[in-house]
Amino acid sequence: MPYSALLTDLYQITMLAGYHEKGMCDSPAVFDLFFRTPPFQGGYAVFAGLDTALQYLSTLRFTDDDLAYLERLTIFKPAFLRYLQEFRFRGKVVALPEGTAVFPREPLITVEAPLAQAQLVETALLNIINFQTLVATKAARITLAAEGGEVIEFGLRRAQGPDGGLSEVRGAYIGGARSTSNVLAGKTLGIPVKGTHAHSWIMAFPDELSAFRAYADVFPDSSVLLVDTYDTLKSGMPNAITVARELRDKGHRLLGVRLDSGDLAYLSREARRMLDEAGFPEVKILASNELDEYIIRSMREEGGRVDIYGVGTRLATCHGEGGGALGGVYKMVRYNGRPRLKVTSDISKSTVPDRKRLLRVVNDGGRFLMDVMCREEEVLRPGDVVYDPSNPCRNKTIPEGTRLVDIRSVVMEDGEIVVPSPSLNEMADLCQEQLRCLPEGVLRLENPHIYKVSMSRGLHELRNRLIEEVQRGYV
Amino acid sequence: MPYSALLTDLYQITMLAGYHEKGMCDSPAVFDLFFRTPPFQGGYAVFAGLDTALQYLSTLRFTDDDLAYLERLTIFKPAFLRYLQEFRFRGKVVALPEGTAVFPREPLITVEAPLAQAQLVETALLNIINFQTLVATKAARITLAAEGGEVIEFGLRRAQGPDGGLSEVRGAYIGGARSTSNVLAGKTLGIPVKGTHAHSWIMAFPDELSAFRAYADVFPDSSVLLVDTYDTLKSGMPNAITVARELRDKGHRLLGVRLDSGDLAYLSREARRMLDEAGFPEVKILASNELDEYIIRSMREEGGRVDIYGVGTRLATCHGEGGGALGGVYKMVRYNGRPRLKVTSDISKSTVPDRKRLLRVVNDGGRFLMDVMCREEEVLRPGDVVYDPSNPCRNKTIPEGTRLVDIRSVVMEDGEIVVPSPSLNEMADLCQEQLRCLPEGVLRLENPHIYKVSMSRGLHELRNRLIEEVQRGYV
Repeated sequence: MPYSALLTDLYQITMLAGYHEKGMCDSPAVFDLFFRTPPFQGGYAVFAGLDTALQYLSTLRFTDDDLAYLERLTIFKPAFLRYLQEFRFRGKVVALPEGTAVFPREPLITVEAPLAQAQLVETALLNIINFQTLVATKAARITLAAEGGEVIEFGLRRAQGPDGGLSEVRGAYIGGARSTSNVLAGKTLGIPVKGTHAHSWIMAFPDELSAFRAYADVFPDSSVLLVDTYDTLKSGMPNAITVARELRDKGHRLLGVRLDSGDLAYLSREARRMLDEAGFPEVKILASNELDEYIIRSMREEGGRVDIYGVGTRLATCHGEGGGALGGVYKMVRYNGRPRLKVTSDISKSTVPDRKRLLRVVNDGGRFLMDVMCREEEVLRPGDVVYDPSNPCRNKTIPEGTRLVDIRSVVMEDGEIVVPSPSLNEMADLCQEQLRCLPEGVLRLENPHIYKVSMSRGLHELRNRLIEEVQRGYV
Repeated sequence: MPYSALLTDLYQITMLAGYHEKGMCDSPAVFDLFFRTPPFQGGYAVFAGLDTALQYLSTLRFTDDDLAYLERLTIFKPAFLRYLQEFRFRGKVVALPEGTAVFPREPLITVEAPLAQAQLVETALLNIINFQTLVATKAARITLAAEGGEVIEFGLRRAQGPDGGLSEVRGAYIGGARSTSNVLAGKTLGIPVKGTHAHSWIMAFPDELSAFRAYADVFPDSSVLLVDTYDTLKSGMPNAITVARELRDKGHRLLGVRLDSGDLAYLSREARRMLDEAGFPEVKILASNELDEYIIRSMREEGGRVDIYGVGTRLATCHGEGGGALGGVYKMVRYNGRPRLKVTSDISKSTVPDRKRLLRVVNDGGRFLMDVMCREEEVLRPGDVVYDPSNPCRNKTIPEGTRLVDIRSVVMEDGEIVVPSPSLNEMADLCQEQLRCLPEGVLRLENPHIYKVSMSRGLHELRNRLIEEVQRGYV
């Protein structure tokens, strides 16, 4: 279903009305979407949401019903409402592939379009990209902490409403979750759905063993039994092992047991021991209950024997330090043929002006060393000096023997998608490959190594010149 | 648009398949939806989301497309898929009105239905109620901190996808936000939309003053000018005052100025002084930038002169200690004519069994003193002893001279909504009235007074008996 054109902040539409009245709607503009700080106090983010964003852009229009609503607000003139009736997004979009590891200040998406078109889409682009990128990043952190253990997304009951659940699962899958409990997301996104059963299943039977037997009878080859309703080690595990034996006698097999409370590291070690001693080394252990990357790491450090992590609330809500939101912004970098910048009282936080290319510096082992933003026409080579955008006095040299790879491409021209979107599996694979290529310290959960994003000399000089111009005018 | 029946965890559908095969689908069941800890380490929550939940229940059905998808999963039998084709929710729902102040362990919603129906709806009910209640609570905290200052919801760009934005605005409005920047939410929910303009508006003009003039020209009576693009006090405010004068000369008036960065308490004092000295005491000051209840409180303590607070990210994402998610759960309390309870290793965390009534103890000044849960048929009076569910050794007496008000009612019978939903304005009014009636310490942002929720003697005795039964059986 197309997104509504009204999925935006009112000020986008009032600004459009202003541009319309002042004859500025068609002046060419360029905006960059970027963030300033990686989420979760980490060292990177995983870019996600592009295809959703392109679907939005390519179907954007105001329905008669939308226009009737805007008319009822009594702040817009008839000529402007007629203009909106014909409004389409006809711009160009340059972007990274979803699943790419990205860093502060990098233009994740650049929109080049007539001012009115480039402006109106700000809110929806931020809404889509901020959240999917945030949750993909969280999922990547959790998946890395699981060190090869499988991660299932379990977050629907704590997500922000129905569609919050869908956006979340898409991001989580790109970031590394291998399946979801959310059936609608499974259907819509075409990804695997998984599940176990609830405590209420147990409570609907006279006792735990009959409940397990009944479930295994209905799903003789896909049962994961929840063993913590009464007492995990004294009741749940012995009953599960009884059922595992009964299934084996009938030529089937118990898929797993699920731990959902208590000391999961300890309980998983004991459960593993009990299963192994009973001759069921193949039965998997699934753990859930407020898991995140920190708890998974600590469980592994304590010798936990969990095979599958069901991660819900803290993935869905992107829980964590500096979490909950990615502070992505969308800033004008060029207007009417001139580079633009927004300065703030802290000069180091000024935006990076103009159209640009984003180059990744890769060594001959395929490792990523740094990223460099440069002007569109600039040619960069190993040995060139580049500048730190947050502290322009600091510079460094692009190492010799490296390749500079332009990691963005044109994905939309004249409002039409020009390259078919990769599949979600391709995006998820790209994410894992990208994480393997990062300097290792960048992946650290706390105090990560800061991956450098520099500006070329050309961009550095342009920015200095514009900052001076602004300062001459206003300070 | 109706919610999809697939908006659920896979395990609900596999459990249904199990109940179907075991002939248990139609056994009568009762489930309570409740939470164990108030969000944000606060003392209360504001109940929201009921009408959304009832819409979901009353339109719940599996489409042919849904059934085709489930068939492709190859884990469900044809007879069960045929059963789903006719599946409808025909249960009874007892609930509180939206906007009610609620506390741990209280049954916010009770669903009484055949087991399959009561079970399937768990995930969607939790998804809807958890998030809307959480955000309504956050909005109430923010609105209280603003002490009469107006709160506008600005969160769309950081919400969890498009519909995350809609659910959020609904909750925020019930909790106390008076308007939103989200146009689609304004249209869908019928609430006021508001906005200013972005920095990009300024950057599309040669200088700030021309940008302000152009905006004021298009919206001569509704302009709120963003004054921090270059320098709030040296550039933005003087230019805004110039435009305020020009508007006045033409018989119009500047509505306000918006501060979006820097020390908002200081800047708002200075901006107020400049506006007053220039003869514009009526021009409002709007502040935004990562606001929440703590920052608003601190701004007020420092003499800030903000009239309107634009609150985005931290409202949309329910930022805060213990925030990000309300841990609402949905537990079976009665099945097949028998009260049920789930015990855990910590007996004090056991659920409260059976159908129940929720009574609010109100003194003759209309103040709320405590809540009491009792059995359906029990009659409670002032002077009766009641018990703490988390520590059954502690008891207290319902004070004399109080009224006991049953605060829940039947809102759905046989799957049909039986009382029309109040308007969002009525819910928002109820919320404000409820907050006024709470003991004051309950509203404290930190270390609030704990509002007591007790059990009647009947419930206390029933629960003890069931805990003993379970312990005899399993420990």
